Amino acid sequence: MTAPERGFSTAEFRNRTRAAQSLMAEHDLAALLLTTEAEIRYYTGFLTRFWESPTRPWFVVLPSSGEPIAVIPSIGAHLMKQSWITDIRTWSAPDYVDDGISLLSDTLGEVTPPTGRIGVADQMESLVRIPLADLRMLESRLLPRLLVSDQTITRRLRLVKSETEIAKVRHACAIADRAFNRVPEIASEGVALSMVFRRFQMLCLEEGADWLPYLAGAAGQSGYGDVISPATDVPLSKGDVLMLDTGLVWDGYFCDFDRNFSVGSPDKEVEVAHGCLIDSVQAAAERARPGAMIADLFHAMNAVVNPSGNIMEAGRLGHGLGMQLTEWPSIIPQDETVLVPGMVLTLEPSVEVANGQIMVHEENIVIRENGAEFLSAPQPPEIRVV
Amino acid sequence: MTAPERGFSTAEFRNRTRAAQSLMAEHDLAALLLTTEAEIRYYTGFLTRFWESPTRPWFVVLPSSGEPIAVIPSIGAHLMKQSWITDIRTWSAPDYVDDGISLLSDTLGEVTPPTGRIGVADQMESLVRIPLADLRMLESRLLPRLLVSDQTITRRLRLVKSETEIAKVRHACAIADRAFNRVPEIASEGVALSMVFRRFQMLCLEEGADWLPYLAGAAGQSGYGDVISPATDVPLSKGDVLMLDTGLVWDGYFCDFDRNFSVGSPDKEVEVAHGCLIDSVQAAAERARPGAMIADLFHAMNAVVNPSGNIMEAGRLGHGLGMQLTEWPSIIPQDETVLVPGMVLTLEPSVEVANGQIMVHEENIVIRENGAEFLSAPQPPEIRVV
Repeated sequence: MTAPERGFSTAEFRNRTRAAQSLMAEHDLAALLLTTEAEIRYYTGFLTRFWESPTRPWFVVLPSSGEPIAVIPSIGAHLMKQSWITDIRTWSAPDYVDDGISLLSDTLGEVTPPTGRIGVADQMESLVRIPLADLRMLESRLLPRLLVSDQTITRRLRLVKSETEIAKVRHACAIADRAFNRVPEIASEGVALSMVFRRFQMLCLEEGADWLPYLAGAAGQSGYGDVISPATDVPLSKGDVLMLDTGLVWDGYFCDFDRNFSVGSPDKEVEVAHGCLIDSVQAAAERARPGAMIADLFHAMNAVVNPSGNIMEAGRLGHGLGMQLTEWPSIIPQDETVLVPGMVLTLEPSVEVANGQIMVHEENIVIRENGAEFLSAPQPPEIRVV
Repeated sequence: MTAPERGFSTAEFRNRTRAAQSLMAEHDLAALLLTTEAEIRYYTGFLTRFWESPTRPWFVVLPSSGEPIAVIPSIGAHLMKQSWITDIRTWSAPDYVDDGISLLSDTLGEVTPPTGRIGVADQMESLVRIPLADLRMLESRLLPRLLVSDQTITRRLRLVKSETEIAKVRHACAIADRAFNRVPEIASEGVALSMVFRRFQMLCLEEGADWLPYLAGAAGQSGYGDVISPATDVPLSKGDVLMLDTGLVWDGYFCDFDRNFSVGSPDKEVEVAHGCLIDSVQAAAERARPGAMIADLFHAMNAVVNPSGNIMEAGRLGHGLGMQLTEWPSIIPQDETVLVPGMVLTLEPSVEVANGQIMVHEENIVIRENGAEFLSAPQPPEIRVV
């Protein structure tokens, strides 16, 4: 499989910027202040694993017209210069007295009127990545300008992916599919779960992943207790259900799906549960057409896994996917987002197999004009055996 | 090499909690509110890669006496129950109307007096991991209680590592050392840098890493332009300096160091630069004794790499290390932190080899009663050749 081209055209970044500016005008925002990895990368293309370091803040100012302005630690200037951004202002961070706050407030002051409202992401799944004391200092420096809600502008734009973005997610999914196909090489009775985790990550890299920000999984009789635990050193036993759930990255875009494996022949209850999960995903995929609501996908899946109508504690049955492992929206009964082409989603039903033991299955789809297209390879009802 | 035991004793978590409570009493804080991965793990041991998902907030309340209280999404209850925490309060997240804020404010209300001051981390390297609109709602719900600075209580405690923590960092370092020793297996003239990155991550996993949150690197004639870029597909050329810098994790603890390699015989200027970096690290290691200041380490290193007294733009020459890739403090001239036994630091001088082309070398040390102990294997002046 040929990899897509890396990166994005400058035209795509310009389109994103203009789309944001158009929404800013609607909401009377004089600028957006971007502080997180995903927001900054969305408008600039700035891609680095250096965000793993919590030390330094990074800022991008999106004015009401013109191009974004980067206000960043000098250590990032060389990389930012390779993006389409031309106005790059730096300070030598970390600065214990003033860690970019003056440079940022001066920049915001320059591009907004004194009564301007400056939008920051403030809703669910967002963060303002500035130490709280610095945020409070910034707010007082900006007065009479106000820091206000960004009205979810960036979240709304990111919800619908371009073909270039979709191609990256598809490529990440294909890498994970190939790695999952090779799990029988690394997992069998007697191998410690921690060793399976380690070797599975190696398979993902060998198949082409850039890196593996996320791997969870579990193994147990009749399923597992949760889906977020790290691996233990307990060896796989005959009859265990092994689950591996990966969010691997290619060119900054995630896949996020899992596969279940039976160690030896599956118990009847595991076979039934797996078939039920596959049916549940299928029901949602059939419902996933432009015009349907996210809540419809929840109900389509839940009707299969919980015919009694109960709702499981986990809270949701899937979510958005793209530059982050999980993105807006959540597949819950309260979400009335209307599907449009280009939305990338995970479908992730879970079912209780025995007392407290669950199984989860997950696939990745993109909404097209005529329905759902699977980005991960949809699975048959039969659970895989190792 | 035998791996240390995973996890920590309950006694260690109790000690951390009591130490925090003692500082809280000094600062008249009725509770601490913890919201980030590192803070929550420090007091509870809650270890999961699920923090990669930005969707859900997680809270731990540390009251002025007694044990920490977890206020978390129900999806995390099963894992939290395996920790020493017994008071675990959950809600079904994501909840679009009230995502844990009522449960959190009720809990804080229960354990603090109406005039209590509740501390949150608000200084450099900290974040309050709550969407801003929810944070503002929480502040208004808590009134007349106030959210105030935690006075860096958790940061100060985390600065000095226990022997159990140090053993985990040492183990992570040993894994990376072994992987670096095997770089000649994967890197040579003609191999794309992106392939070197991929294969190096596989080596780290094979040598025992749990996962690889961080890898940066670069390759170029006479050094490289920066140390935070992702890999390109450009093949290694004869005479390139290849640098790989990894933050791999074992049981939740990081190493963070790099190695430089010359592709074929090194140029004279590269040889000299590498020797200079090694001398610089050595100068700092000799200075790194209890009673010295962080600033002294800066000056010891800088005197070697910048005899003219100039300070490079990168901003610092090392930092703390532990549960995060980079931790407090920063090795800068302004940092007057006095070294005490148990501090784990990186020493990371950089030098300009040619116009704009730099080289960086990094080692990890722990401060002992009688001086610095290297956790990574200290390197000789000669650059490695592949």
